[in-house]
Amino acid sequence: MKELPAYVAQIEPGWIDYNGHLRDAYYCVVMSYAVDDMMEHLGLDAAYRESTHCTLYTVELHMHYLHEIKQTDRLTVSTSVLDSDRKRIHAGCEFLCPRIDGPAATAELMLLHVRQGEKPSVVPFPAEIDQRLASLRLSPESAAQRGVGSRKIELRRR
Amino acid sequence: MKELPAYVAQIEPGWIDYNGHLRDAYYCVVMSYAVDDMMEHLGLDAAYRESTHCTLYTVELHMHYLHEIKQTDRLTVSTSVLDSDRKRIHAGCEFLCPRIDGPAATAELMLLHVRQGEKPSVVPFPAEIDQRLASLRLSPESAAQRGVGSRKIELRRR
Repeated sequence: MKELPAYVAQIEPGWIDYNGHLRDAYYCVVMSYAVDDMMEHLGLDAAYRESTHCTLYTVELHMHYLHEIKQTDRLTVSTSVLDSDRKRIHAGCEFLCPRIDGPAATAELMLLHVRQGEKPSVVPFPAEIDQRLASLRLSPESAAQRGVGSRKIELRRR
Repeated sequence: MKELPAYVAQIEPGWIDYNGHLRDAYYCVVMSYAVDDMMEHLGLDAAYRESTHCTLYTVELHMHYLHEIKQTDRLTVSTSVLDSDRKRIHAGCEFLCPRIDGPAATAELMLLHVRQGEKPSVVPFPAEIDQRLASLRLSPESAAQRGVGSRKIELRRR
């Protein structure tokens, strides 16, 4: 099972900006809740966080905005595990609207498994979570076939 | 004058997540309003948008999360013009808290000058905006000296 269930977003009226579309930052809010959903499916849920004091911290996020999203759009986010190791998850998100061909946005995140306390420390996943990650992880070929990937942002002179 | 005034964020209680710190996505919300401030200073304000139907669209965003931000933190965002051309702005943001040495986060954005209408089109900046951008643009050396820059997100095996 390589597929996590898609996250269905509820676009709030206050998320639409003066340009008449979803404000850039609210793509990130939607994604943040989609990642919470992924954590539930991995077993990194509230009960896990409470009993272990372990959680995920986002260390890096790269968003590509490909199409405008309107208040009336039905928006879902499909999340995949592009890669993982003992302490980290490299996740990918695709934003999908039935109105739009291809993704409306793509994103990548790097997430770190952290034990909270006076001084938070990075710790390995328990074996059970490791196994779930392994079962969800895309092959390098499938991961590479996803849409726009993370890269250095720069103005290339034409 | 290479310095835009810093944007002072108001951290809302609902922006703190189950980890007890500012949820990843709300760094993006804060940045989005800091960019609105930059637009005011460049002259891309509400009056400009209304009279020209032109505005900025965000096409790419890369955030590096370096420190946790708490509800009690005083948070400001310093925004710079890292680069620009006739139609695009490459902006950089640093998130600063007096409690934390160095930035709490850094971000880069690519912004596109768009004329809205039935079919939005990318158009050059007017000469006046071009001049303001030129006066704010950092030298390549200064831009390179900024903190963590955008890059490909990947798990490098250790």
